[in-house]
Amino acid sequence: MTRSTMLYTPPPFDPKAPPVRINLLSDTQTRPTAAMREAMARADVGDEQVGDDPTVNTLCERVAELMGKEAAVYMPSGTMCNVTATLVHCRPGDEILAHETAHIIAREGGAHAAIGGFQVTQLKGPDGQFTPETLRKALHPRTRYQPPQTVVSVEQTANIGGGTIWKKAALDEIVAIARQHGLVTHMDGARLLNATVASGISPRDMTAGWDSAWIDFSKGLGAPIGGVLAGTREFIDAVWQWKQRLGGSMRQAGICAAACIYALDHHVERLADDHANARALARGLSQISGIEVQEPETNLVFFKPDGAGIPGDKMVAALRQRGVTLAMMDGRIRACTHLDVNASQIEETIGYVREIARGA
Amino acid sequence: MTRSTMLYTPPPFDPKAPPVRINLLSDTQTRPTAAMREAMARADVGDEQVGDDPTVNTLCERVAELMGKEAAVYMPSGTMCNVTATLVHCRPGDEILAHETAHIIAREGGAHAAIGGFQVTQLKGPDGQFTPETLRKALHPRTRYQPPQTVVSVEQTANIGGGTIWKKAALDEIVAIARQHGLVTHMDGARLLNATVASGISPRDMTAGWDSAWIDFSKGLGAPIGGVLAGTREFIDAVWQWKQRLGGSMRQAGICAAACIYALDHHVERLADDHANARALARGLSQISGIEVQEPETNLVFFKPDGAGIPGDKMVAALRQRGVTLAMMDGRIRACTHLDVNASQIEETIGYVREIARGA
Amino acid sequence: MTRSTMLYTPPPFDPKAPPVRINLLSDTQTRPTAAMREAMARADVGDEQVGDDPTVNTLCERVAELMGKEAAVYMPSGTMCNVTATLVHCRPGDEILAHETAHIIAREGGAHAAIGGFQVTQLKGPDGQFTPETLRKALHPRTRYQPPQTVVSVEQTANIGGGTIWKKAALDEIVAIARQHGLVTHMDGARLLNATVASGISPRDMTAGWDSAWIDFSKGLGAPIGGVLAGTREFIDAVWQWKQRLGGSMRQAGICAAACIYALDHHVERLADDHANARALARGLSQISGIEVQEPETNLVFFKPDGAGIPGDKMVAALRQRGVTLAMMDGRIRACTHLDVNASQIEETIGYVREIARGA
Amino acid sequence: MTRSTMLYTPPPFDPKAPPVRINLLSDTQTRPTAAMREAMARADVGDEQVGDDPTVNTLCERVAELMGKEAAVYMPSGTMCNVTATLVHCRPGDEILAHETAHIIAREGGAHAAIGGFQVTQLKGPDGQFTPETLRKALHPRTRYQPPQTVVSVEQTANIGGGTIWKKAALDEIVAIARQHGLVTHMDGARLLNATVASGISPRDMTAGWDSAWIDFSKGLGAPIGGVLAGTREFIDAVWQWKQRLGGSMRQAGICAAACIYALDHHVERLADDHANARALARGLSQISGIEVQEPETNLVFFKPDGAGIPGDKMVAALRQRGVTLAMMDGRIRACTHLDVNASQIEETIGYVREIARGA
Repeated sequence: MTRSTMLYTPPPFDPKAPPVRINLLSDTQTRPTAAMREAMARADVGDEQVGDDPTVNTLCERVAELMGKEAAVYMPSGTMCNVTATLVHCRPGDEILAHETAHIIAREGGAHAAIGGFQVTQLKGPDGQFTPETLRKALHPRTRYQPPQTVVSVEQTANIGGGTIWKKAALDEIVAIARQHGLVTHMDGARLLNATVASGISPRDMTAGWDSAWIDFSKGLGAPIGGVLAGTREFIDAVWQWKQRLGGSMRQAGICAAACIYALDHHVERLADDHANARALARGLSQISGIEVQEPETNLVFFKPDGAGIPGDKMVAALRQRGVTLAMMDGRIRACTHLDVNASQIEETIGYVREIARGA
Repeated sequence: MTRSTMLYTPPPFDPKAPPVRINLLSDTQTRPTAAMREAMARADVGDEQVGDDPTVNTLCERVAELMGKEAAVYMPSGTMCNVTATLVHCRPGDEILAHETAHIIAREGGAHAAIGGFQVTQLKGPDGQFTPETLRKALHPRTRYQPPQTVVSVEQTANIGGGTIWKKAALDEIVAIARQHGLVTHMDGARLLNATVASGISPRDMTAGWDSAWIDFSKGLGAPIGGVLAGTREFIDAVWQWKQRLGGSMRQAGICAAACIYALDHHVERLADDHANARALARGLSQISGIEVQEPETNLVFFKPDGAGIPGDKMVAALRQRGVTLAMMDGRIRACTHLDVNASQIEETIGYVREIARGA
Repeated sequence: MTRSTMLYTPPPFDPKAPPVRINLLSDTQTRPTAAMREAMARADVGDEQVGDDPTVNTLCERVAELMGKEAAVYMPSGTMCNVTATLVHCRPGDEILAHETAHIIAREGGAHAAIGGFQVTQLKGPDGQFTPETLRKALHPRTRYQPPQTVVSVEQTANIGGGTIWKKAALDEIVAIARQHGLVTHMDGARLLNATVASGISPRDMTAGWDSAWIDFSKGLGAPIGGVLAGTREFIDAVWQWKQRLGGSMRQAGICAAACIYALDHHVERLADDHANARALARGLSQISGIEVQEPETNLVFFKPDGAGIPGDKMVAALRQRGVTLAMMDGRIRACTHLDVNASQIEETIGYVREIARGA
Repeated sequence: MTRSTMLYTPPPFDPKAPPVRINLLSDTQTRPTAAMREAMARADVGDEQVGDDPTVNTLCERVAELMGKEAAVYMPSGTMCNVTATLVHCRPGDEILAHETAHIIAREGGAHAAIGGFQVTQLKGPDGQFTPETLRKALHPRTRYQPPQTVVSVEQTANIGGGTIWKKAALDEIVAIARQHGLVTHMDGARLLNATVASGISPRDMTAGWDSAWIDFSKGLGAPIGGVLAGTREFIDAVWQWKQRLGGSMRQAGICAAACIYALDHHVERLADDHANARALARGLSQISGIEVQEPETNLVFFKPDGAGIPGDKMVAALRQRGVTLAMMDGRIRACTHLDVNASQIEETIGYVREIARGA
């Protein structure tokens, strides 16, 4: 796989296409609900940059508590969580180990090299995950000729791997290897709560032993903006300095944080609905002749229609003509379920795919 | 002046102090009004990161138009406007020329060196401004031993200089010198609209000839979050890549952009009220024996009470006991007027200062 | 292959081992001959940093002429040639494309990320070379999410690939692809003259179309210190600024440059002897049962003794006990011929390997 | 003073000017003596990059011993000593405190920002030196808005300050302040042995308490290439990684190191002759009416002829016509004595200045 094919390709823009009725493109596209907007409008706010925004403070305390960490900080994006974390964990010339499909490699514009001077080693393995054994083999003794290996990073769930869940046993073993070799552990929690809801393992247990971990609120949780990064108090203090430098310090951010708190209260358990919808979609698609489907573990369904005589990009374009939007990613079609997609829309989508495949 | 004294020092925290009734600490502390919150709650939103948020798009078009630039981009902070602009304008090892009190030197955590590898040369001059002549003298022919001089930056208004306005004639001359020597020009517009309202010069005229310029919406304009950076389309495209890397790309940011649009519609002309309040405050203070006041040009009033027998920090602490908050900055007291401060509160503050000075 | 196995592992240090009589470890270990030392002792010198060293100037002119480039600069090492070239060609966040076994990835300590902020994409292919087709497939349209692809780099010869020669036709096609996509081309010439001597193609033809290329004088050419980087005059001027910053500007460097000039005059054509020795070694080894040998194209011979019942590291240690030193590299044994190794030493080495294999 | 005037300006190039007979331009221009060349020609060498060059190893041990440090490393230049030292001492975004005329600010091309991401704070004070009190006042408590202050650096002797010697008492106090505030101390020893010979304080005492310090061999010591950086073993190990990255690792560097060892044995005590020549020059010049001379402490003589009716650059040009070369630096003329200048040339130079001044 080359990185160029990892990025998603949405349907081509067509001014004559009907409006989108079913948005399976990405859970980043969820819009705040009326109740969430209401919570935002009523939020108590202050100056976040100087630590005076009560709503942001509450959000950070809740996330720290949820993940069993000492402290947390609110960020305008998940990318800034990843970037500031590695800026604190590493020095220029250090090496980060991650799966070759990880967001920090595929979608952050080379930020870890550009800003931090870090080299990211691309580990391999099926379903977007490397095994503890693969990690162990990639470690080497320290020499003058090679970057010091400093951080091992996982993305929970592994997006391009199919939304797969890193299992607790693997995570624990990775932490053990990291500790043994003096590496720091970082969990990119873009869809961490999808993993915890689907597996029944609490966020606290899932991130236990990880030096830093974060939750994205702007994906399936449905908040408009932000992620919260957690770790030790000392780590979060150091992260704040980089947040300031990168321009991530905001002012009355409580407006946005209120949406995140609302999401924690109302949108976590319902992620199970997205997973059920994903399973229903996969089941429906797999019954269509020639469609190859990866069994979903969370809210992402990857499938290939080629066996039905139609290549993926043609299928994506044909669905778009029917008001359904989804994307090509890494040579397959990715459908993403979230709070703006319901069960009957899933059925409708399956019907369209069947109809298009039949006509191919 | 050393940089250590440039930062503002708020009153010491005192749990027994009365609640703040009059906030002259900073215009960054303005809270969204009820009408602004209403505009936010109703905002039409989309995915900002992929260019699909209609409210963000409208805001960017309006700011580009206002400043007579081709394009603009919404950012989570003014600092990110400064940092991304220099990242596009410069290469590592380049030199930026700015006044020694500029925000990019004093308050961005060394970001321009840390992220970009740029050296910032500190120009001197009264009231936070350097003259065109000072700039000219700081320029040197290109040698192997010195950083190439690439960008000249001004901060409009000059905060630590007393909120002073860079005059149109000086700005034009700086642009002319820069062009002659192949330098790029950047305007940090933290309080740009204070300058344009006070001087009667339009933002388009004020930034004419400047390669990049931005407006902060989270200060006197009263929006909770964000700045908008403008320039050529090619520049803004390049800035987007860095916005992505730094983690400044957001999702349904239209919620916040709606507040900025509201501010453009309702909070620009009223900056004149803040200026009138600043003048009233300065006038009142200057009538108190022993108080030295710098004549305000916009919404910042710097004064020294030492002549009245009380040092600045004592005065700040005493005012805090009366429910008024303001800060020491660069050895003087800074009072900042904004939309959460009205004329009668100004009178009340003058009264307190007189009372404290009398008792000193 | 993981990078950890790419570095060479010399024989373990053993204080009781006999002195090294046959040094097949690396051509970097060549010592200046008496005649070369004499040339150094007589060198006319000046201050290199300010362009006043006549011997350095002569060397640079000769290398520029040899490679058909406008200008050249003397450097303390080949690594500095690679690092300064990419610092000029790229901006932070850019992407360099190179073979996964290239020196810039495997042996420069992550310098390109650490100093420049560049991400190096690891292309694959047999014998340390990627095909033009592989390059073409790795290119992608420019997006906000990915580093701009800026430089394609080849290492001539491909050390870890077996000292293989990049063929003129492949080089030309790579240049054509690069030009079509706006990429800059860089040739790491660690053993460039081995390639030109072995192939009968002149350095000028071999580097035609390449934006930057360099020659290492401290390998088979036998000089103690330095490489010379060539390109356009504008490029070399920009490189000088980085040479200054990195601390590569020297003073009376003519002493060392004299050795390089001597090498150009006396040590180029004799590289053919090293190649003949390498072929003789390969032929001899391949006649020993169980020894797998890669046919050498230049002065590097890679072989595996495992089929003879003895693993590589044991063979290396056993040879060391007989006064022969060579190294494990990338899971195989690498023997490197150079001017301090003669034909009878090659025969002697073959005899030892036969003896050790027989006893295994 | 602006940095643009800090660099030295040699006489304008004139093809019709007579050859240089008296070189007072810089001690970097010293050429190796016949005996030194002989020592180089006979040097025992090995592969420096892997620690196998016996002459380099001897040199490093001798310098470590001389400065009372645990370990040392040979570098191609003093600039690389400064750059690698700060790369190890600091992290991006850190602040280095140095005098505004220091080499790391004025002459290293912005390297500390460009490569390391460090901000260098420019302390002020007469004769190129800041007082301990000035340092103390520049320190500030750690905030999110400011770079962490990490390193304090002095340049011994202070070149642009007039070759002045940092006094032992001041150095000790600076170390004490640094320790109290958790800062690391670095001594740029460009002309360290001039300071120790002139003051009678041993290098070990002079650098006692300094975390890193180095000696330049290519100035008054007369060797063609190199500096040696010393510190703890752990520090030197970390420096080696950066030496590798920057391309400072060399091969048979023993050739050059032999010149440095020769200099330690034969050229240290004779620095006193250079100082005597400098004093003689200053005395002679000060007796010419209208010439203002700074009393030299070591081998640098700064003077201004303006009072004699001739500006500095005219004097420099007129001297060049008489075969004497020296330079303008920081608005004054700098004459530098070294082993290629003898007492009678000093007298001759004084005569020329008198003659030119008289004719003005």
